[in-house]
Amino acid sequence: MSAPVQISANKHFGGYNRRFRHKSTSLGCEMTFTIYFPPAVEAQAKKVPLIYYLSGLTCTDENFIQKSGAQQKASEFGIALVAPDTSPRGLGVPGEADSWDFGVGAGFYINATVEKWKNWRMYEYITEELPALLSSNFGDKIDLGTAAVMGHSMGGHGAITVGLKNPGKFRSISALAPICNPTSLECPWGTKAFTGYLGDNREAWKEHDSCELIRRHKGPPLPLLVDQGSADNFLSQLQPESLEVAAKDAQYPIQLRMQEGYDHSYFFISSFIDDHIEFHAKHLK
Amino acid sequence: MSAPVQISANKHFGGYNRRFRHKSTSLGCEMTFTIYFPPAVEAQAKKVPLIYYLSGLTCTDENFIQKSGAQQKASEFGIALVAPDTSPRGLGVPGEADSWDFGVGAGFYINATVEKWKNWRMYEYITEELPALLSSNFGDKIDLGTAAVMGHSMGGHGAITVGLKNPGKFRSISALAPICNPTSLECPWGTKAFTGYLGDNREAWKEHDSCELIRRHKGPPLPLLVDQGSADNFLSQLQPESLEVAAKDAQYPIQLRMQEGYDHSYFFISSFIDDHIEFHAKHLK
Repeated sequence: MSAPVQISANKHFGGYNRRFRHKSTSLGCEMTFTIYFPPAVEAQAKKVPLIYYLSGLTCTDENFIQKSGAQQKASEFGIALVAPDTSPRGLGVPGEADSWDFGVGAGFYINATVEKWKNWRMYEYITEELPALLSSNFGDKIDLGTAAVMGHSMGGHGAITVGLKNPGKFRSISALAPICNPTSLECPWGTKAFTGYLGDNREAWKEHDSCELIRRHKGPPLPLLVDQGSADNFLSQLQPESLEVAAKDAQYPIQLRMQEGYDHSYFFISSFIDDHIEFHAKHLK
Repeated sequence: MSAPVQISANKHFGGYNRRFRHKSTSLGCEMTFTIYFPPAVEAQAKKVPLIYYLSGLTCTDENFIQKSGAQQKASEFGIALVAPDTSPRGLGVPGEADSWDFGVGAGFYINATVEKWKNWRMYEYITEELPALLSSNFGDKIDLGTAAVMGHSMGGHGAITVGLKNPGKFRSISALAPICNPTSLECPWGTKAFTGYLGDNREAWKEHDSCELIRRHKGPPLPLLVDQGSADNFLSQLQPESLEVAAKDAQYPIQLRMQEGYDHSYFFISSFIDDHIEFHAKHLK
């Protein structure tokens, strides 16, 4: 594993947004990610907990860092944030950039089994390679054993599925406007992505569906906060009501809040990001 | 004067970012601007005060709205924000887009006197046309008589010069990393813009130089807050030390804060935007 190279650093709320490039072994290409180190890291020389933020369709590691405002509360609570990219890039797979909702920028946080998309292993990247890389390179700054996961839209789907499948790795999960039930017929995004990356075996799809995973969940439930805007143009694909029903059936306590009049944009995210950082801060103590 | 047409609306911190397009008479082209209406506007049907935010080189009306996080405190204090664009666009003047620091995106908040750039009348647009347009169309929501002005970089220059030249129109002025002394030899941005727009008459340049204006200021001083990052790559062109000397000479009280390690980016702006909104809120009461 080669060390990540820092490509930019910007002071923010007393800490630093540091952007890195590295060669990913699971994806077979160069990848970028950004870490926000709160001031506590440099001032106190103590390790801080970490929140992974998984972005939505078309995003890179930069959207959240530039637009969410999450660093203000992360600075206050002394929590690091890591924002990875959303898919492999630059591999030149034919058709990889033909759609905004498949291929480049649309990794869906799963491991593809269809040969053509064999490099699309964002699940492995997020749950194995990135934590190992952070541990090797920033283990003196970040306590990788005290982590939470959150995300938006496709990344909200990523946060809930990654969190539920790895209860020992995360203390809490939150999502903003997540794709809750990608295997349902009402979710063309999920059908397109899962068919493309996983083929027609619908049983394999269920391994990456928040509603399915919450129904099957064993052991103590991880705290789960979900915010959804009522004016979101994509509401019919996101299906928060399916997650609510699945959680109720499984007696899995979730906090699902409908936010009147908010849409799918970063204006929605930044309006509620403080609540999410505070929610995780409580569980990362 | 034709009414502005709303082209987008996004709920944010309980209020709305509303983006408008209109035909500008002073600039002779279509222009966009964005207003943040705090929740107080719709909930309480009362008029709110206004802060004008003037953006820097290359910016449009969108950078501040998407990245600053200013809406959080504007929502809390019940203040509207207006973010205009930085120059005329789409006129097709030969060479208008050849440089990032002249022409399109670089209006410098002055009225050009060189014939070729006759449409570059951003001073008139900001101080006359836009206030009149806001009054006609949003006078039931915004109290135009209770206003402040702030800006970043070229827009910091704009805020201080526009504020000092119009003391009756604004209650307070603030700037982030402003171009303080554009007529000095150490400021190639200023020399290029003022030569291009105003020609070689250096006396005319002085009408738009914060250091000159503060030295000449008559009457009660407007409250003025300036933040400047110490790691700003453009520090040699910005010259906060010249503003400090001029203010001292003129016995004009300013609050100039050097912020250790911060650069010229929106990460710097968002780190201190709360202080600026609070500063203006105090004077807009």
